[in-house]
Amino acid sequence: MDIRKFVEQSIGCWRSQRSAHHLIFSHFEAVQSSIEIVALSPEDPSVLELCRSYDIDPTAAVSPFYMSWEGLSDWDEKEELKGSCILAPVPDPDHPNRGKLLRSQGYAETIPAVGDYHLTDDGSFVLHTPYDRAMAEERIWFVTPNLRCRVSFIKTSAGSGVVTASFSTEIRSLVSGSD
Amino acid sequence: MDIRKFVEQSIGCWRSQRSAHHLIFSHFEAVQSSIEIVALSPEDPSVLELCRSYDIDPTAAVSPFYMSWEGLSDWDEKEELKGSCILAPVPDPDHPNRGKLLRSQGYAETIPAVGDYHLTDDGSFVLHTPYDRAMAEERIWFVTPNLRCRVSFIKTSAGSGVVTASFSTEIRSLVSGSD
Repeated sequence: MDIRKFVEQSIGCWRSQRSAHHLIFSHFEAVQSSIEIVALSPEDPSVLELCRSYDIDPTAAVSPFYMSWEGLSDWDEKEELKGSCILAPVPDPDHPNRGKLLRSQGYAETIPAVGDYHLTDDGSFVLHTPYDRAMAEERIWFVTPNLRCRVSFIKTSAGSGVVTASFSTEIRSLVSGSD
Repeated sequence: MDIRKFVEQSIGCWRSQRSAHHLIFSHFEAVQSSIEIVALSPEDPSVLELCRSYDIDPTAAVSPFYMSWEGLSDWDEKEELKGSCILAPVPDPDHPNRGKLLRSQGYAETIPAVGDYHLTDDGSFVLHTPYDRAMAEERIWFVTPNLRCRVSFIKTSAGSGVVTASFSTEIRSLVSGSD
């Protein structure tokens, strides 16, 4: 598994079920959403702009993509979860299974972010993203080509306490008329 | 991480939140339970009996333990989930990070089972258990010494279809008076 193959397998529309465990309150939150992941050309102006914003040579980015989502949570049924962003992996030239993941500010994400990823021997994509006062750790893997799973943790910035743990199962949506 | 250390870290009382995603119906199930894991002596009669039932030399088993649980699901609030069993890892002499996990018939589990486990480089315990008409795949790991996570899949016996995916976060319960 390399990053190109991982992104390639992720391209498409996904129907997602996400359970968040808010550990301090033992609260369960259930989110249902649809996710769309679209490949972008490395020369796409939005990708060039994203790389420039991080002072990264755009030719170092591989398999950039656009991701959008739209969903509903049972926590606050009035609020629609909706957002999009552009993502670009930048592999480490010395360690092709590691690198940076650049993320744009989308219209729902209030801040851009850059995370460190690596691919494990068993084909999982693991991402650590530091924020101002928190840290996110995610593991994404394919159980089958049409079932993608994601476990994420929001930790205190020191990394010692876990505030929220969540689990997503993402099933590929077969678009009618695609045959 | 070896199997002895993994079991040792697991000993104790845990407060568990489990979310099951029933994928065909996009249904969310929430289960709250308490789990107790107690170390057993390899010479405990129940361990000797378990090994005998699988024709395993009891001296090959390491770190056997007793596990009990008690909980409630939001799927059927009238039904109390309750059970216990005895488990015994039997490492492969040639590959110390792999082996069999023997499980007794408990008073809630209707059938005994033997699974194949391995420990991954990043410290996860991965278990595959074949049943008559299904297969279970589990991954358990420690996020911190006091937070254990578990992802499990129930697959069709051919292994191609996933029926249920579930995620547990288990927080160590501090027993009062333990200081």
